[in-house]
Amino acid sequence: MQTTSIKAYGTEAADADIKQLQIKRRLPLTNDVEIDIMYCGVCHSDLHFARNDWGMTEYPVVPGHEIVGRVTRVGDGVTKYKTGDLVAVGCLVDSCRSCNNCKNDLEQYCPEWVGTYGGFDKHLQTPTHGGYSETIVVDEEFVLSVPENLDAAGVAPVLCAGITTWSPLRHWKVGKGSKVAVVGLGGLGHMAIKLAHALGAHVTLFSRSTNKIEDAKKLGANEVIISTDESQMEAASGRFDLIVDTVPYEHDLNPYVGTLSTNGTLVVVGYLGPLDPMLVTVPMIMGRKSVAGSLIGGIAETQELLDFCGEHNIVSDIEMINMQNINDAYERMLKSDVKYRFVIDMKSLKES
Amino acid sequence: MQTTSIKAYGTEAADADIKQLQIKRRLPLTNDVEIDIMYCGVCHSDLHFARNDWGMTEYPVVPGHEIVGRVTRVGDGVTKYKTGDLVAVGCLVDSCRSCNNCKNDLEQYCPEWVGTYGGFDKHLQTPTHGGYSETIVVDEEFVLSVPENLDAAGVAPVLCAGITTWSPLRHWKVGKGSKVAVVGLGGLGHMAIKLAHALGAHVTLFSRSTNKIEDAKKLGANEVIISTDESQMEAASGRFDLIVDTVPYEHDLNPYVGTLSTNGTLVVVGYLGPLDPMLVTVPMIMGRKSVAGSLIGGIAETQELLDFCGEHNIVSDIEMINMQNINDAYERMLKSDVKYRFVIDMKSLKES
Repeated sequence: MQTTSIKAYGTEAADADIKQLQIKRRLPLTNDVEIDIMYCGVCHSDLHFARNDWGMTEYPVVPGHEIVGRVTRVGDGVTKYKTGDLVAVGCLVDSCRSCNNCKNDLEQYCPEWVGTYGGFDKHLQTPTHGGYSETIVVDEEFVLSVPENLDAAGVAPVLCAGITTWSPLRHWKVGKGSKVAVVGLGGLGHMAIKLAHALGAHVTLFSRSTNKIEDAKKLGANEVIISTDESQMEAASGRFDLIVDTVPYEHDLNPYVGTLSTNGTLVVVGYLGPLDPMLVTVPMIMGRKSVAGSLIGGIAETQELLDFCGEHNIVSDIEMINMQNINDAYERMLKSDVKYRFVIDMKSLKES
Repeated sequence: MQTTSIKAYGTEAADADIKQLQIKRRLPLTNDVEIDIMYCGVCHSDLHFARNDWGMTEYPVVPGHEIVGRVTRVGDGVTKYKTGDLVAVGCLVDSCRSCNNCKNDLEQYCPEWVGTYGGFDKHLQTPTHGGYSETIVVDEEFVLSVPENLDAAGVAPVLCAGITTWSPLRHWKVGKGSKVAVVGLGGLGHMAIKLAHALGAHVTLFSRSTNKIEDAKKLGANEVIISTDESQMEAASGRFDLIVDTVPYEHDLNPYVGTLSTNGTLVVVGYLGPLDPMLVTVPMIMGRKSVAGSLIGGIAETQELLDFCGEHNIVSDIEMINMQNINDAYERMLKSDVKYRFVIDMKSLKES
């Protein structure tokens, strides 16, 4: 297999900083699109994976799955893209394409889906490498088209933070008149507010502190409920059709379940772990309420989101950084010190 | 208000046996139906309520909310029923009739619904009294019509055990080709199997022991998975669209969540309490799976179920008892020593 060597940023150990590496990319095969990466968003998962927080990392790892760039070359069989197109790659670069989930445009639930980093690259027989790099080569079926009217850097987080909140909003049929609440105002939460608002929903942010009220309203929230204020929580009892819970750490879901309406669903998109404190069934039974999980979104759904963002001129609020500042960015991300997503300007890597 | 005094069975304290009492029933008001009770099913809730397990019982309590009988008198405004009709009363005898839930035929989720026992009787200004009694007087809107082709005694448990499992089967759109699993083979579980089978689903029972296999298959289950056998559970991974969990005590839901398909739902209908061991979000996120609760069903849905039972000739498997044996029946119920529901032959009370 013909390959090229390119510059990337990654790490060779859980306790090592992210630093510059050389990695191999294959030359485009028949159905491949080669992309010059312009921007790559920085997701919490990047940090978890780099530090082996989930115990599944193979090194070296090159994180990054919020990728926006321009097509530089395509394989002979490619029909959807041509050189110069503004495109994106999200969390998946392949799947089995034959299971029921794949057939139903739910590639994210395919048992064999290949992550943009840390997956198994069947061509190179190595772990896949993500978007903290100069270029990436991806099968056209897993490449998305980006509307040219959008700010390309702001699009990057749409590929993970955006689709992770869009998918439940669509699955649970949020539209005009829906009452949606969002728990947590980070990368995911701020996209959830923008998207639910653009879908016509009445949007509420649950926040532990009053200092996010103004920002939430600017993003499109109709109101903010202070979740530590029992009287406000009591007043919100039975109100929401859908709660999108983006909080990435252990927290008590029971007070939020109480604010669901009959048939309402609280969907967890940010927290991987046991529900401690324990979920109590009584309020779920007394209103046919559900607690669910949801993972990113499928390829068709991600394209739908990008098109929707194009129509509604929605991008992420970002803070641009240079590739060389990634380790500082991780530390700031751990302190939620970013509004609302770091995006790496990949020029800083190419010109280094 | 004009009243009559009738014989009933109930208790005046949490630690007292159920014994014979005299209670008052109102004479039928304009919209009321007076019912001569022929049969009353014995539900776990009867026992919990009599013993104040939920800390909300006002004494004296007369349990019973699986009531079948014949109309003896109707008020002037009654249009749906006439003397001699075979009718039933389930868990509700009133609701606010104006909230969104009531308007949507979800009276069971009305915040002001009036339980058949232990609710607040606005006419008598006392707790409502249930079906362990000679007669009951109920507004016609909360009276159900029973198909005459059915065994009336076997119909009684349909009013609670039946509707409690029917409602989630219908809400989650179970039909031909659906893959349904049932956890627990008691009063609720055996009805869940019969109803899911009659709806055309492929039905699996999860059981901890092999000695229920034959019975489950007779009831309509296609197969039984032994939930304590890890290899069987592993083989069932990702299979079920809906799991109806009827187990009334604390148990681990996580192994069952693993057997849900993408978009599958596990609905808890039997257990009120904290989910201990804690529910883990990862398998929920990795397949957009839900854990939900569901409570009995609405009046229209209960009528739909009775009509369905009439068409498919479905009733509960029961063991008939005399009213005088209720305390023994409670003890046997606590040991799951009944196939699958005790039903009181109310002649035993009337003739005592």
